[in-house]
Amino acid sequence: MKQITDGELKTASPEQLKEICGALREEIFRTVSVCGGHLSSNLGTVELTVALHRVFDFPKDKLIFDVGHQCYTHKLLSGRADRFHTLRKRGGLSGFPKRSESEYDCYDTGHAGTAISASLGFAKARDLKGENYNVIALVGDGSFNNGLIYEALNSVKILRSRVLIILNDNGMSISPTVGGMHELLAEMKGEPPLEDVKLFERFGLKYRGIVNGNDLNELLPALEEAKEGLKEGSVLLHVTTKKGQGYSFCESAPVATHGVSPAKKHSEYSAALGEELCALAKSRPEIVAVTAAMTDNLGLRPFFDTFPERAFDVGICEEHASVLCASMAAGGMKPYYAVFSTFLERTFDEIIHDICAQNLPVTLCIDRAGVSGADGETHQGVFDLSFLSFIPNLTVAIPKNIAEFRAMLRLSADFKAPLAIRYPREGEEGEETAVEIGKFEVLHSTMSDIVLLAAGERCLTIAENVRKAALSEGIEVAIVNARFLRPLDEKLLAGYSHCTVITLEDNSLIGGLGDAVARFYRSRGLQTRVIGFGLCDRFLPHGEPLSLMEDFGLNFGEILDAVRGAHACR
Amino acid sequence: MKQITDGELKTASPEQLKEICGALREEIFRTVSVCGGHLSSNLGTVELTVALHRVFDFPKDKLIFDVGHQCYTHKLLSGRADRFHTLRKRGGLSGFPKRSESEYDCYDTGHAGTAISASLGFAKARDLKGENYNVIALVGDGSFNNGLIYEALNSVKILRSRVLIILNDNGMSISPTVGGMHELLAEMKGEPPLEDVKLFERFGLKYRGIVNGNDLNELLPALEEAKEGLKEGSVLLHVTTKKGQGYSFCESAPVATHGVSPAKKHSEYSAALGEELCALAKSRPEIVAVTAAMTDNLGLRPFFDTFPERAFDVGICEEHASVLCASMAAGGMKPYYAVFSTFLERTFDEIIHDICAQNLPVTLCIDRAGVSGADGETHQGVFDLSFLSFIPNLTVAIPKNIAEFRAMLRLSADFKAPLAIRYPREGEEGEETAVEIGKFEVLHSTMSDIVLLAAGERCLTIAENVRKAALSEGIEVAIVNARFLRPLDEKLLAGYSHCTVITLEDNSLIGGLGDAVARFYRSRGLQTRVIGFGLCDRFLPHGEPLSLMEDFGLNFGEILDAVRGAHACR
Repeated sequence: MKQITDGELKTASPEQLKEICGALREEIFRTVSVCGGHLSSNLGTVELTVALHRVFDFPKDKLIFDVGHQCYTHKLLSGRADRFHTLRKRGGLSGFPKRSESEYDCYDTGHAGTAISASLGFAKARDLKGENYNVIALVGDGSFNNGLIYEALNSVKILRSRVLIILNDNGMSISPTVGGMHELLAEMKGEPPLEDVKLFERFGLKYRGIVNGNDLNELLPALEEAKEGLKEGSVLLHVTTKKGQGYSFCESAPVATHGVSPAKKHSEYSAALGEELCALAKSRPEIVAVTAAMTDNLGLRPFFDTFPERAFDVGICEEHASVLCASMAAGGMKPYYAVFSTFLERTFDEIIHDICAQNLPVTLCIDRAGVSGADGETHQGVFDLSFLSFIPNLTVAIPKNIAEFRAMLRLSADFKAPLAIRYPREGEEGEETAVEIGKFEVLHSTMSDIVLLAAGERCLTIAENVRKAALSEGIEVAIVNARFLRPLDEKLLAGYSHCTVITLEDNSLIGGLGDAVARFYRSRGLQTRVIGFGLCDRFLPHGEPLSLMEDFGLNFGEILDAVRGAHACR
Repeated sequence: MKQITDGELKTASPEQLKEICGALREEIFRTVSVCGGHLSSNLGTVELTVALHRVFDFPKDKLIFDVGHQCYTHKLLSGRADRFHTLRKRGGLSGFPKRSESEYDCYDTGHAGTAISASLGFAKARDLKGENYNVIALVGDGSFNNGLIYEALNSVKILRSRVLIILNDNGMSISPTVGGMHELLAEMKGEPPLEDVKLFERFGLKYRGIVNGNDLNELLPALEEAKEGLKEGSVLLHVTTKKGQGYSFCESAPVATHGVSPAKKHSEYSAALGEELCALAKSRPEIVAVTAAMTDNLGLRPFFDTFPERAFDVGICEEHASVLCASMAAGGMKPYYAVFSTFLERTFDEIIHDICAQNLPVTLCIDRAGVSGADGETHQGVFDLSFLSFIPNLTVAIPKNIAEFRAMLRLSADFKAPLAIRYPREGEEGEETAVEIGKFEVLHSTMSDIVLLAAGERCLTIAENVRKAALSEGIEVAIVNARFLRPLDEKLLAGYSHCTVITLEDNSLIGGLGDAVARFYRSRGLQTRVIGFGLCDRFLPHGEPLSLMEDFGLNFGEILDAVRGAHACR
C-alpha cells in the first residue's frame, strides 16, 4: 500500500481515517496470508494504532509494544509500507519491533510483560535528562497475568515518573486469558460495570476507560484526554478491542488465527505430545499437564479435553508454572510442563532451585527448540542445551524424530527425576527404536575413524547429507544419534577416543553438546580431536530455519570440509 | 534447648506457651550469635510459628516458608533442637527448609516469591489424590512485591483449590519494603484502617486480619478461624510482626540484623562498588544504580545517599530491575544493576532479550559469585560464568582483587555495551594494574610449559599455592589472571598452545572458563592439552566456602597432581 505520512494522518478527516484503517487491515491480511505472522492481534489493533499515531508525535514520543507481535500497523505507518511485503522474510522487516530497523521502534520486545517496565525506564531517563516526550506502553490483557507487569506496576510509585499504559483488553493471549486478574477485568466490562478502579489507582495510576478500541470516535478523544492527564501523572487507559476485527472468521477463531504459518510440510512434535500424554494418563492418574497460555500450540488440547481436572493453563506465567509443577511433584503427582524453548528462559531460576535442586520428577517438554525461524531473535530456541547443560540432577534428551520423542515420553512416565526433552516444531514421524537413558544410537557404523555425532532431527539430516557426499569421495563416516546431552554415553564415546569426532547441534556452539563431548575426553586425559559445529555467537535474525542454520554455523560445505580434513590428516 | 514435642506444645497453658517463646527466642539469639544467620526475621516470627505448630498438625499438614530464612523456630519445634547448634555449619542443619533434613520441611525455598505457587501445587496434588491435609504458605510483605507471588495469586481461581496464605507483614524485606503494594498494606494498617480487602478477595481469597503476629492471644483464635475457613476455600490471613521482636537493638536495626555473619576477615567488594560508583557519578550525570531490595548488602548505600534521584530500589523484582536498566540505557542513561549471583538467575531471560539482544550499555555488578557458603544450595553463585558464557554481545569480567574491580568499574563507565563483572563477597584490596577489555594478565611468567589460568581472587590464591608447592619440587609453573571470560585473550592463549593449560574457576566445571579455553584451541585446530578444575556437577551444601571448594572440585592436591602429571609427561 501507499505510505501514509504523519502529516496525512494528522490532517485526515474522520472519513479518510476510516478508509486508512480499511486499507491497513487489507494490507495486513494480504501480507500475512503470504508471509505468515500474527493476524488477529494485528487486525484488532488497527484503529488503536492509527489513533496513537494521530494523537502522539512519534518517534519523539516513545511507543513500546508488549510482546510486540501487534506492531504491524505501526510499521505500516512509520515509513515501512514499501517494505511490508518482506515481513518475516530473511533480510526483510521483522514481525516484532526492532530498534535496528527504524527509529520509530524504540524498544525491542518479544517475550511478554516487559512494556511497563520499559516505559518507566524511558520516562525516568527522560526526566533525568530534562527531555520532553511522552512514553506509552501498549499491553494486552494476556500479558497482565505476567509477574513482570506486576513488578512494574509496583514500581510506578517508586519511580515517580509519568507513563501512559494502554491496557488492550481483548480477553485473549494466544489462548483465552485466565485467572483472577482476567475475572476482575471481565467484571469491569460487565453490565452493570464493576467500578473497581482502586487496584490501579493504588499503584499510582489514574484509571480511564473503558473505551471501544475499534471505534476512532471513542478512541481519539480518550487518547487526547489521556495525553493531557500525562502532564499530571501516570495514566492507565482501559481499551477493549476485538481480536481479528473486520474479518469474521478471525473474530470467531482468534486462537487459530493468532499466528498464521505458511502451509506445513511435516508432522508436528506437538501432536505427538498430546497423543502420548493422553495415552499415558489413562492408566496413570498422577500425570498432570501444565502450560503457560499455549495449550493449542503445544499440542495439549486433547489432554485438556480428556483430562480437564488434570490440565492447567496458568496464563503467561512461566515461573509460576515451574513452581506449580515442582510442588505438585513433591505432593506425589507426575507433572509435564510444555513450553517453547525461548520462553523457558523465563523460568531458568525455578528449573534450578525448585525442580532440580529438589530432584523432583518434573518433565519439561521443550518445543520450538533450535532455530525457530520467522519470529527472529526473541524466539530462537538456540540456548536451551547451553543453559540446561550445567544443572545438576537434570537429564536432557534430544529425540531424532517424532517416533523417538514418543518413546522418550513413555520412558519419562516411570522416570523419577527431572527430565527435559527438547525438539523442533516439525519433523518426520520415523521409526521407533528402543531408548535408554544416557545411551546414544549408532545409525551408521563403519571402520572409519571419523564420527559425526549429531543431536536432533535437523542435525542428523545434515549428518546424513554430509555422509553421502563424503562417501561419493570415498570417505567413510560413522553417524551417531547423540540423544542425551546429560548424561552422555560415556562408554560409546570412550570407544571413539581414537577418532575425529565431529559434533552437530542446532544450539549455540557455546556450552552445548560439542563442549560436553570435548570435556568428557579431556576429563579422561584423552587427546581425542573434537570439532564442533553449532550456531555462532550472535543473535539470529528472522528467516527460514534451514537457511539460517546453513549461514550461521551449521554449513554443509564447512562440515564436509572438516570431514575431508580429518580424512586427509589421518 | 530441650526438644519441645508436638504433644507438649498442643497441651501447654498460655503461660507455658509464653515461656516456650522466650526459650526459643533465646536459643535463636544464642545460636545465630555463634553461627551467623538470619536474626531479626526469626526473632519476629517466634509466636507465629509456635501458633502454627499449636493449631496445625505437621508434618501431615504442609508449611511452606517463602524464602525460608525465617524457619528457625520451625526447626526447633520439629525434632531438631538437639542439632540446632550445628546451624549453617558444614554437615549441620541448613538455615533454610530442606526436604532432605526432615519430613517437616515439605518444600525447599531460598529465592523469594515461590511459596504461594508451591502451596497451590501441594493443595492440587492433595485434591487429585483424595488426601486430606492443610497447606499453609508463610510469605513476608517483601516477597509480596515479587512477580511470582502475583502469578500465583492470579492462579488461585484457576486451580480452584484451598490454601492458607499468611502475609507476614513487617514492612521489611532485607531492605524496607517499597512500592505500590507496600503503600496499600501500610494504609490497611493505618488509623483509620483502609478497608481495601477487595484486591485479595478478587483473586479468590477470603481476607482476614489484621492480627498482631507477636501476640499469641490474637494469633491462636485467628489461626483456628482460618483453619475453619480453609474448609470452604482459600484464606489470606494478614499478620503484622516486628522484625527483631524481643531484642531492642534488633527491633531498631532490622536491616543490620537481618543477616548476621561471624566477624569478617577481609575487605568487601561491595564497599568498593559504592565508592567507585559515587566517584564516577559525580562527573557523569547519566550513571544510575538499581537494586532489587539489597541496597546495603551490595554496598550501594553511599550512592543512594549521595544521588537519591539516580538510585532505585525496586523491591524483590530482579526481572523488572533488568528491564528498567535496559530501557533507561535505551533512553540515554548508564545503568549499574547490582545483584547477588544466585538472584541474577531470576532474570536470565531479560539479560538475554532486553539487555544483550539490544546491545545496551548496562553493567551487571554480580556480588557473592562463586561458592557463597553458609546459606547453601540456593545461594551459591556457581552458575553465573556458565549462563553468561553464551549470551551474544556480553562482556564478562572477573577481577583478581578489589583494586582490579575498581579499575574495571572505571573502565565500564565508557563501555558502550553490556558488561558483567562477577566477584565474591570478600577479598584483598591488592594493587591496581591496567585493565583492558579481553586482555589477560600474566602474573608469573616462566619458561615452563605448564600454565595455571585462574579466574578471580580465590582461584588465583589456589594457583599461587600450587605454584609454590610445585616450585619446591623443582617444577616451574606460569600463572595467568584470566580476567575476561568473554572475550578471551586469544592472542595470549595462542602463545600457550604448546603448553599444558590448567584452568581454575569457582564456577561449575560445565560451561565456564575451562570449556571456553578448550573450545578456543579446538576452534583453531590446536591439540593443546587443557585440564579444567571447577565445581563438580552437584548442588553444593552449606559450609565454609574454602572448604567446600576444596572438597567439590578445586582440590589443592588434585591440582598439584595435575601439574606434576603435566611435568612428567613432557
